[in-house]
Amino acid sequence: MPRRIILDCDPGHDDAIALLLAAGSPEVELVAVTTVAGNQTLDKVTRNALAVGTIAGLVGVPFAAGADRPLVREQVVAPEYHGESGLDGPELPEPTIALDPRHAVDVIVETVMAAEPGTITLVPTGALTNLALAVRREPRIAERVREVVWMGGAAAGGNYSPVAEYNAAIDPEAAQIVLDAGCPVVMVGLDLTHQALADQAVLDAIASVPGRPASFTLELLEFFRGTYRDQGFEWPPVHDACAVAYVVDPGCMTVRRAPIAVELHGELTTGQTVVDLRHAAPEGCTTSVALGLDAPRMWAHVVDALTRLA
Amino acid sequence: MPRRIILDCDPGHDDAIALLLAAGSPEVELVAVTTVAGNQTLDKVTRNALAVGTIAGLVGVPFAAGADRPLVREQVVAPEYHGESGLDGPELPEPTIALDPRHAVDVIVETVMAAEPGTITLVPTGALTNLALAVRREPRIAERVREVVWMGGAAAGGNYSPVAEYNAAIDPEAAQIVLDAGCPVVMVGLDLTHQALADQAVLDAIASVPGRPASFTLELLEFFRGTYRDQGFEWPPVHDACAVAYVVDPGCMTVRRAPIAVELHGELTTGQTVVDLRHAAPEGCTTSVALGLDAPRMWAHVVDALTRLA
Amino acid sequence: MPRRIILDCDPGHDDAIALLLAAGSPEVELVAVTTVAGNQTLDKVTRNALAVGTIAGLVGVPFAAGADRPLVREQVVAPEYHGESGLDGPELPEPTIALDPRHAVDVIVETVMAAEPGTITLVPTGALTNLALAVRREPRIAERVREVVWMGGAAAGGNYSPVAEYNAAIDPEAAQIVLDAGCPVVMVGLDLTHQALADQAVLDAIASVPGRPASFTLELLEFFRGTYRDQGFEWPPVHDACAVAYVVDPGCMTVRRAPIAVELHGELTTGQTVVDLRHAAPEGCTTSVALGLDAPRMWAHVVDALTRLA
Amino acid sequence: MPRRIILDCDPGHDDAIALLLAAGSPEVELVAVTTVAGNQTLDKVTRNALAVGTIAGLVGVPFAAGADRPLVREQVVAPEYHGESGLDGPELPEPTIALDPRHAVDVIVETVMAAEPGTITLVPTGALTNLALAVRREPRIAERVREVVWMGGAAAGGNYSPVAEYNAAIDPEAAQIVLDAGCPVVMVGLDLTHQALADQAVLDAIASVPGRPASFTLELLEFFRGTYRDQGFEWPPVHDACAVAYVVDPGCMTVRRAPIAVELHGELTTGQTVVDLRHAAPEGCTTSVALGLDAPRMWAHVVDALTRLA
Repeated sequence: MPRRIILDCDPGHDDAIALLLAAGSPEVELVAVTTVAGNQTLDKVTRNALAVGTIAGLVGVPFAAGADRPLVREQVVAPEYHGESGLDGPELPEPTIALDPRHAVDVIVETVMAAEPGTITLVPTGALTNLALAVRREPRIAERVREVVWMGGAAAGGNYSPVAEYNAAIDPEAAQIVLDAGCPVVMVGLDLTHQALADQAVLDAIASVPGRPASFTLELLEFFRGTYRDQGFEWPPVHDACAVAYVVDPGCMTVRRAPIAVELHGELTTGQTVVDLRHAAPEGCTTSVALGLDAPRMWAHVVDALTRLA
Repeated sequence: MPRRIILDCDPGHDDAIALLLAAGSPEVELVAVTTVAGNQTLDKVTRNALAVGTIAGLVGVPFAAGADRPLVREQVVAPEYHGESGLDGPELPEPTIALDPRHAVDVIVETVMAAEPGTITLVPTGALTNLALAVRREPRIAERVREVVWMGGAAAGGNYSPVAEYNAAIDPEAAQIVLDAGCPVVMVGLDLTHQALADQAVLDAIASVPGRPASFTLELLEFFRGTYRDQGFEWPPVHDACAVAYVVDPGCMTVRRAPIAVELHGELTTGQTVVDLRHAAPEGCTTSVALGLDAPRMWAHVVDALTRLA
Repeated sequence: MPRRIILDCDPGHDDAIALLLAAGSPEVELVAVTTVAGNQTLDKVTRNALAVGTIAGLVGVPFAAGADRPLVREQVVAPEYHGESGLDGPELPEPTIALDPRHAVDVIVETVMAAEPGTITLVPTGALTNLALAVRREPRIAERVREVVWMGGAAAGGNYSPVAEYNAAIDPEAAQIVLDAGCPVVMVGLDLTHQALADQAVLDAIASVPGRPASFTLELLEFFRGTYRDQGFEWPPVHDACAVAYVVDPGCMTVRRAPIAVELHGELTTGQTVVDLRHAAPEGCTTSVALGLDAPRMWAHVVDALTRLA
Repeated sequence: MPRRIILDCDPGHDDAIALLLAAGSPEVELVAVTTVAGNQTLDKVTRNALAVGTIAGLVGVPFAAGADRPLVREQVVAPEYHGESGLDGPELPEPTIALDPRHAVDVIVETVMAAEPGTITLVPTGALTNLALAVRREPRIAERVREVVWMGGAAAGGNYSPVAEYNAAIDPEAAQIVLDAGCPVVMVGLDLTHQALADQAVLDAIASVPGRPASFTLELLEFFRGTYRDQGFEWPPVHDACAVAYVVDPGCMTVRRAPIAVELHGELTTGQTVVDLRHAAPEGCTTSVALGLDAPRMWAHVVDALTRLA
């Protein structure tokens, strides 16, 4: 039986690939796609999500827009990685999917409360604003979700700052609320995603897949490679796809249970996900960090998904 | 035409008197009562609100429960002021009012969005958790409310800490969200409420009013006087009633427009409402602080309301 | 027997008047004058101190320069109050006093350790950098000083920020070190000094005193009035003179014992001196705050001192 | 010509080995040993330093005691690593070295100012309190030292907290002052020192050296192994010896220039040394972090030094 997931995203090049991976993987059933301000403003990432869903040929999956800014802090966007549109590079189709009129937080709460307990996995690949609002609006969802698999954070070394990762840094209070909610949370952060580089072999493999989803992905990666080269990377890390890949095939990663909390008050460290790797995790610890990746295995899932979507 | 208000409260002795004042004042129309964890846990303050509404004889006003904890911080309660029940002292009646099944945040959002713009005044007398969630869940309410009149904060001198007032201190992030939302906010804080002491003259005046609402108020004040005496006060300040009194009769207070922001990161000052009184308020400043009270005039409104409810 | 004091200052118009008051008061014996960066850079305030000492006719009092920046934070100066020289307005004489080659911290440590215990009063009227370095360099001075009388801080309302006073704000760690050192500290802050306004009556009284010290003081106050008018004051508060006035005549102020600590980690409140006035001071509390001033009595001391110096 | 160093330490088992390495290495000339509170109280670590100096047979090297507590924070000690004495395990001899009456800060300032510019290297292996006080007391030493080689901090992963190293965490303000002073600072932190494990091969090599210094070192390592085993280490890292080893033979480490700053205001991260490894170091960056160790080469220096001291 496929794992039922809500993908909460802010496309974003790597969010787009995450969405295609989810749409094309039989191990996963997309029950909703929700959006949140992050890589770009809410209206832009929502339009991008609808366009990518259109390319993926999704039918019957609700797409809903959520928070248009972080919980407490001022909004930040990342044109230096994703361009002005949030998805610069490929030409986007006119979406054939209509936006669900509900708010993303309501979609998350209603979906989780309506489903059998333990069946819905939340897969956020942006700031955790929607999830945090959902948890505070309906605390029982924390007991009812199966798991949260988040692309965000880092045990060692950041990108937004020397020690903080972007999705954690732009809404640290939301991240802390979710990590502290009591449900299982797997943090798929930079420790893992900087191993998921779209290098020449990956590009070649995707180039060999027919169809628009694959060519679209290639165009995304071409643009993304350019902006990441400006940041000193030879090949771009495709962060968000890793969170979906973990749901598709948990065996492609090594994950370690450890306490994780977010620094909310530092001058240099705000948004850092502080992971305590000094000792074994204490009894009852609900947070885990992904540390090791079998990259070829993960990319094979991406290629398979794109092939299925062709 | 009476001012239409939503009273968002955590009864609490002074919240109870605020509710009675609202219920008995023709200048005010109670369109909803919502509750939030604060003086005690959510279930206790909600039961208290229903009981006080019953004493007030309210009919047709929705009562809805809201957030059961602060936005980011751990929950705090105040039995040292309000006892274990949150409303120790008088015997509470079995409520004849049924709880609205909706969440307080939904009631606030739906009420404001359904009403004519500029007609609803929000009167929170506890932590601002519900209002903050409502603003983030539906940002347009900030443009649609007439005003927020909040009992909370202090320009100089706190009670929870040397510089922070209780309602601000227990959910400072929520307070900052609301103060920064862009709608007019009047902060009726300790600077004002420490002038609203239920002294012997006040007690005598209330004692002369017939009926259960007045005798109930007297019993509340008797208990409240005892706990405040332990805090070094001769007579108890009836904080929350002041926020309602401001809506009933703004002329009973002097209010000054000034920038207000909440310290979220201090070691000694977290939750302090930092009011800049050094200069005239800048253009576009939407926050005000109540500084002076005509106490006899305010107490006359309380006596009038209790008389009407008798 | 006169009180023996070390004046640690950063002249500064009001520091200059403090120095003249100390020099001309028989109740006080100036055993040293030390300088610290603050109102202006160390070299400027040191030159100013020597010039004012020359006007006062001081002989045999060591003047020593100290810290050229705050303990931890970046340096701040206040030309908007004191001009580019730190003492704009009057013409300064060429100093006839030679600078002591020792560091101010060494002068403080050596003077306190050489004197009878309990005989030296430290009177800092700027940032507490020198005193903090002295306390850490020689912890025993905390037990040996009689008292520290500091112009700095505020119980309610700041000038550098809405809640922080300048001398506290520019080196909050130093202020915390001194307030926590265990010796008696009287904080003569804005609560007091905003009552010490050099109004027309004060100016007239000083104008009637013959000699250069009085005319110099008048010129200082004229300039100071102008910069303070830009800050919204009709008459300038002569902060630093109040600390010396307290030593000259403690009876001219009401002082209350209360715990005082400095916020070091706030975003809006760093440098605030948090004074707990909610309860009586606990046993062993060594800090006090000056709250009430008999202003005519204080100004009479200034006039007397200027007359003696004439 | 040997490098002239001042060893500023808080022995401490690894400080003791650092002192023996310095004493026995011809590449290094010990010009002074200063002590600072840290692993234990000042009196204990000072007595330990004198005892270790006695075992090393040092003659004519001044030993001076310094700061008895951190600059701003409360004192912390580490009996869980070093026992109640700070040097539990071996029996300590009665020191034959007399303590210099000067304060460590004065010894540092006077030594650096008296020497040729660029000839003195400061090697702190504890909290940076003494160095910070020296820099503020005499700012010119920052231009006159050759280099500071500090055992402290970590780029990734702490021991005192999940992200902060002990020497940085117990006096973060002092660490920030020194890292920001403008002189070259090499941070030999946990990234490096956790590669310097006294494993069986190391113990065997030391066991083969005759004389009290070697047997004393072996007894230190035996005790240290026990306390580190309680912390989850199979073999103890001999942190402080690494800083001296870097001076003896810089080639045994790879060091990378990078901006380093200390978090002073975090709730979870205070004392973390934030190292920016995302990009190449900017022009003018004066801080470096040691990342790679040739451990056999380093231990060979320790064995050689112990042999020479025999």
